[in-house]
Amino acid sequence: MRIETRFTKLVGVEHPIVQGGMMWVGRAELASAVSNAGGLGILTALTQPTPDALRREIERCRSMTGKPFAVNLTILPSMTPPPYAEYRRAIIDSGIKIVETAGHNPREHVEDFKAHGITVLHKCTSVRHALSAERMGVDVISIDGFECAGHPGEDDIPGLVLIPAAADKVKIPMIASGGFGDGRGLAAALSLGADGINMGTRFCATIEAPIHPRVKQLLVDNDERGTNLIFRSLHNTARVGKNSVSDKVVEILKKPDATFEDVAHLVRGAQGRVLLESGDLDAGLVWAGQVQGLIHDVPTVAELIGRIVREATDIIGRRLPALLA
Amino acid sequence: MRIETRFTKLVGVEHPIVQGGMMWVGRAELASAVSNAGGLGILTALTQPTPDALRREIERCRSMTGKPFAVNLTILPSMTPPPYAEYRRAIIDSGIKIVETAGHNPREHVEDFKAHGITVLHKCTSVRHALSAERMGVDVISIDGFECAGHPGEDDIPGLVLIPAAADKVKIPMIASGGFGDGRGLAAALSLGADGINMGTRFCATIEAPIHPRVKQLLVDNDERGTNLIFRSLHNTARVGKNSVSDKVVEILKKPDATFEDVAHLVRGAQGRVLLESGDLDAGLVWAGQVQGLIHDVPTVAELIGRIVREATDIIGRRLPALLA
Repeated sequence: MRIETRFTKLVGVEHPIVQGGMMWVGRAELASAVSNAGGLGILTALTQPTPDALRREIERCRSMTGKPFAVNLTILPSMTPPPYAEYRRAIIDSGIKIVETAGHNPREHVEDFKAHGITVLHKCTSVRHALSAERMGVDVISIDGFECAGHPGEDDIPGLVLIPAAADKVKIPMIASGGFGDGRGLAAALSLGADGINMGTRFCATIEAPIHPRVKQLLVDNDERGTNLIFRSLHNTARVGKNSVSDKVVEILKKPDATFEDVAHLVRGAQGRVLLESGDLDAGLVWAGQVQGLIHDVPTVAELIGRIVREATDIIGRRLPALLA
Repeated sequence: MRIETRFTKLVGVEHPIVQGGMMWVGRAELASAVSNAGGLGILTALTQPTPDALRREIERCRSMTGKPFAVNLTILPSMTPPPYAEYRRAIIDSGIKIVETAGHNPREHVEDFKAHGITVLHKCTSVRHALSAERMGVDVISIDGFECAGHPGEDDIPGLVLIPAAADKVKIPMIASGGFGDGRGLAAALSLGADGINMGTRFCATIEAPIHPRVKQLLVDNDERGTNLIFRSLHNTARVGKNSVSDKVVEILKKPDATFEDVAHLVRGAQGRVLLESGDLDAGLVWAGQVQGLIHDVPTVAELIGRIVREATDIIGRRLPALLA
């Protein structure tokens, strides 16, 4: 039994489950596994060092799955921004049909993708940003709650409130993100008005995720309290796994006059990559969401998606109706 | 059509909807209205100035409803604690059959209530506290997420993660609290493994809530961002409505060495009572949750509960099953 929503029909996937666009993790191994299992896999553009490397990664993913997959393009404020327009061009030239955008001022990218007939999911963390993306012409909103790994924004609104508040105003299909890891969450998201879920941290704890087994085991071992919010005082809040590095960043940034420069040596992206690849859990920051509290094993992607769909259809088809009197 | 759960059967109410035990608001007018509408109304013990006044309030509530209602006893750290044991005695003597406990070290109270055959709901904000209350012998856990008004604890785990994480371990019936205001939330809570919901802020925006109409209108006007977290640096975090007083408290407590004494003149409970009764929205603190973003009107309690049950049964009986393919 399957779950069909406005999202699955629009995007042409079997299950309303999207893989989060995660730095260093969103490679062909994981994206193809998710798409092969009937979800929507996502390559992360900026994980590739150059636009040409992204072209090759897209080809590699295509050789691993015949099903639809997407590419994520995240626009973050930076002193030395990557060549976004060239990455965008690589995505368009490669014939990609679905893109996930995230971050600041996506208009120029959204307009170009739309002009090339690409379906655009835009990830954001507030109702007002969802409405502005809808006006911009995106096809799907991915609404990201306070529970999430990565950047939850500064409003701190969790999915239980954020999803229905957005559903009251957003007309296009909507994917719920942040805190999802099982069939209960999928059924809850659908109840709250979403058309599917996005999972990042949960997909990191799968056989196919291209990260060190010790990192996967960390996600199993941690409970829901195993995260730190960092960069709050810099108005660029990020949720990461609790470890010696993120504890230190929190401590340093508690000082009233602390700036990013005081922690820059601790938080370079390359260090996060070393952590993921080496399994040295204190090498840098690792993005991890509160859903760690619901992660108890490291299955294959197909096992995970199959289990989530079975659990959600059992809740929807049997457990909830049994409560009606 | 109704929704029957382990909770409705255990407690003997028609709908799995509990009114939050709110200071100054949990009086006979609201509690009886909720119970008459088939939910579980709750009087707040400490809203009454003396244990004898509580005895009279219980009698008054009984004269207004023939259905079950409960009394809340919240134990908070205090330099000059109220006479908890005498309030407890008033509850037991009055023949109350259902009690909600909340706060620190409830053991002595729980044991006495249980010895008198009283059904005890215990409200807490973490899985570990839920398990310790279960071991203590309470009958129902009310698990309170980060979204809530009042004291969310210091873990900041929202319901989307907290409810299923608790449901994985807690065996007794469980009520989900924090962020609930409509039938979508009730269906989501049931999906996540809860046996019902608790609503505080949403019940404040009803005709029967004994507070000034301007406060009710504030809850309608505010969106999900209209709250402040105060007392975080004092490790006694509380979520209150955003107003000039809570903004000032946040500002003062930002100073590294600020103590409770620096804000004590702003946050006396009596000032919150003045706000609720006079409708002077800057008179003090008012507890309000993020669910404000889902509050769009001020109906009667019966209209509200009827609407929530209709919406949840429609989601469970029709909208969700229609997604199965």
